[in-house]
Amino acid sequence: MTNQALVLPWQDLHDFAKRVFVRVGMPEQDAVTEADALAWANLRGVDSHGVVRIPWYVENVQNGIINPTPDIQITIETPAIALIEADRAFGPVVTNQAADLAVEKARGVGVGWILIRNHTHQGTMGQYVERIANHDMAGLIFVCGRPNTAPFGARAAGVSNNPVGISAPAGRHPHLILDMATSLVALGKVLMARERGESIPVGWGLDENGNPAIDPRALATLLPVGGPKGSGMSLLFECMASIMVSNPLLLPVLSGEVGEVKTTGHVGRMARHNQNTVVAAIDVSRFTDVEEYKAQVDRLIDELKELPKAEGFEEILMPGEREELCYAERFEAGIPVPTATIAGLRKVANDLNVEFIRGVA
Amino acid sequence: MTNQALVLPWQDLHDFAKRVFVRVGMPEQDAVTEADALAWANLRGVDSHGVVRIPWYVENVQNGIINPTPDIQITIETPAIALIEADRAFGPVVTNQAADLAVEKARGVGVGWILIRNHTHQGTMGQYVERIANHDMAGLIFVCGRPNTAPFGARAAGVSNNPVGISAPAGRHPHLILDMATSLVALGKVLMARERGESIPVGWGLDENGNPAIDPRALATLLPVGGPKGSGMSLLFECMASIMVSNPLLLPVLSGEVGEVKTTGHVGRMARHNQNTVVAAIDVSRFTDVEEYKAQVDRLIDELKELPKAEGFEEILMPGEREELCYAERFEAGIPVPTATIAGLRKVANDLNVEFIRGVA
Repeated sequence: MTNQALVLPWQDLHDFAKRVFVRVGMPEQDAVTEADALAWANLRGVDSHGVVRIPWYVENVQNGIINPTPDIQITIETPAIALIEADRAFGPVVTNQAADLAVEKARGVGVGWILIRNHTHQGTMGQYVERIANHDMAGLIFVCGRPNTAPFGARAAGVSNNPVGISAPAGRHPHLILDMATSLVALGKVLMARERGESIPVGWGLDENGNPAIDPRALATLLPVGGPKGSGMSLLFECMASIMVSNPLLLPVLSGEVGEVKTTGHVGRMARHNQNTVVAAIDVSRFTDVEEYKAQVDRLIDELKELPKAEGFEEILMPGEREELCYAERFEAGIPVPTATIAGLRKVANDLNVEFIRGVA
Repeated sequence: MTNQALVLPWQDLHDFAKRVFVRVGMPEQDAVTEADALAWANLRGVDSHGVVRIPWYVENVQNGIINPTPDIQITIETPAIALIEADRAFGPVVTNQAADLAVEKARGVGVGWILIRNHTHQGTMGQYVERIANHDMAGLIFVCGRPNTAPFGARAAGVSNNPVGISAPAGRHPHLILDMATSLVALGKVLMARERGESIPVGWGLDENGNPAIDPRALATLLPVGGPKGSGMSLLFECMASIMVSNPLLLPVLSGEVGEVKTTGHVGRMARHNQNTVVAAIDVSRFTDVEEYKAQVDRLIDELKELPKAEGFEEILMPGEREELCYAERFEAGIPVPTATIAGLRKVANDLNVEFIRGVA
């Protein structure tokens, strides 16, 4: 495998993604939503959550794990909270709805706290909290999945590596968009190392025997950030999302109640893919003047960027800033897609008899 | 300095703390609340947030930074949120009220999201989220302070090392109580190393020149956990708490608008001490059956503790478990208080003409 890549316009990748998702049965509007999510990730340089995931999505629609035509229902609701049953929907389809509902409730009572039950992969967390920040609100999201991370003190998976997003609206500057995971590195980074044929550093994860994994293909278990901190956040998130909505994701695997399903194109051994999420919005205007708020955020960013740099740093970057710079560049210049990824997408196009990416031979 | 310690009954430390706080002007009930907070920390082994802080609290009441008789007011309120103006109250005095208000609102609409503006040091975060968990709710708290932590990429302080607490109610087991900071280690651990005359590992923090600090007395700046993760959480917390309540704590120091006040008994150079907090409660009963929820949490804890141990670990501990075990022991056997701490407390007793700890010569 090499690091070679084709550079392609984002629109062409988006159009291809949409064709694939329509072909596997999604309503056109939902297919656009899913394609938007992948393009957003690729444009911002989060290639692990971009078009590289398409073969895995298709496989999971075909094996019944992702539902392309879900019956999404609000099952519990107050002026401040809601529980949305996602019926195994594609993550972005239901999570955009949930983020919008959080915004609506925050507009009413100051905060909206929405739980989503039983959905599938969402892509980047940043897209949802940016959506909330665009309404002049602070956003918070965290998602729970199957065990893939060793709790502090263990040498096998017991918690998840929950992606987390937090946002605050800025004025002159791009919104602050933190997008992280409770593992030291996100699973997607392991996937990309695999895709690129690179090795991974000690500390990222463990192999099946609980020893350090250097080959990304041998990685069976991630390690938490900050030991008990990442590990503890993950456990508490499971309690605040999955157990709260009666859809536990850690316990059934740990207790052996459900078996594990191996899927290709993903990292390590994975149980049946399923997720639960908390997404929240807090309305700035309920607490203070919005323009003054954004001006304060801008000035804080300015001052932080002026601090003396640590060795090896030319610039102090804000959360989301690197991705924002990448977006500006790739929006014009196109998205580099590794040849291994292209091969996977071509196979999808052939298998589904879908027109391939425009301009790619 | 040595590691010698006197072992004292928690009640005697509590009584002494209460006498001190009454003497500096707190109403008796508030003095008990503050003494409770210190005893709770010492009992759970979080000595950095126990009676060792008393001299610093007294100094800050005397110099006008902590207000022993605050006019605490709810200034903004909906069924789901509130903003509490703390008038520089002792942290526990206003934060217990805020936690109770979060619980009350969560009982009404499922979530309570309370902001506290302009308070002072709270002690451990664990006590507040345990208070919420005791009501069969999940709890969340994070607090913002002055810059004391280097943002990722910087060699000087720009963000804070926000203590964070998250809880979930359990049944047979103690509640899950995560108590962490966005720095690699809490400031209190540096303070304790100083108190014990120990050195600190590379990676905890930097000296005034931005180089690694080995001597805890030289530590000027903490380092964030997980680089951009801890750093990013801290920045976003400032946006969700301090800027949201129009009481920014980072910007005024970074821009030079406020000077720095040196205080003794604390670590490094500190600006005028001031804090803002978010505390939230989510009512389990709104989403699912409470007994079933707790049973699921219990079973998850059981399974996690059965995982194969990492090298050097005899047990896999849950968030808060070590502290819970310590509590059981110290409640009966007493609290070891280093002689250096005793000396500091004796000086307070002498200065204020307050009866010293019972039984200590």
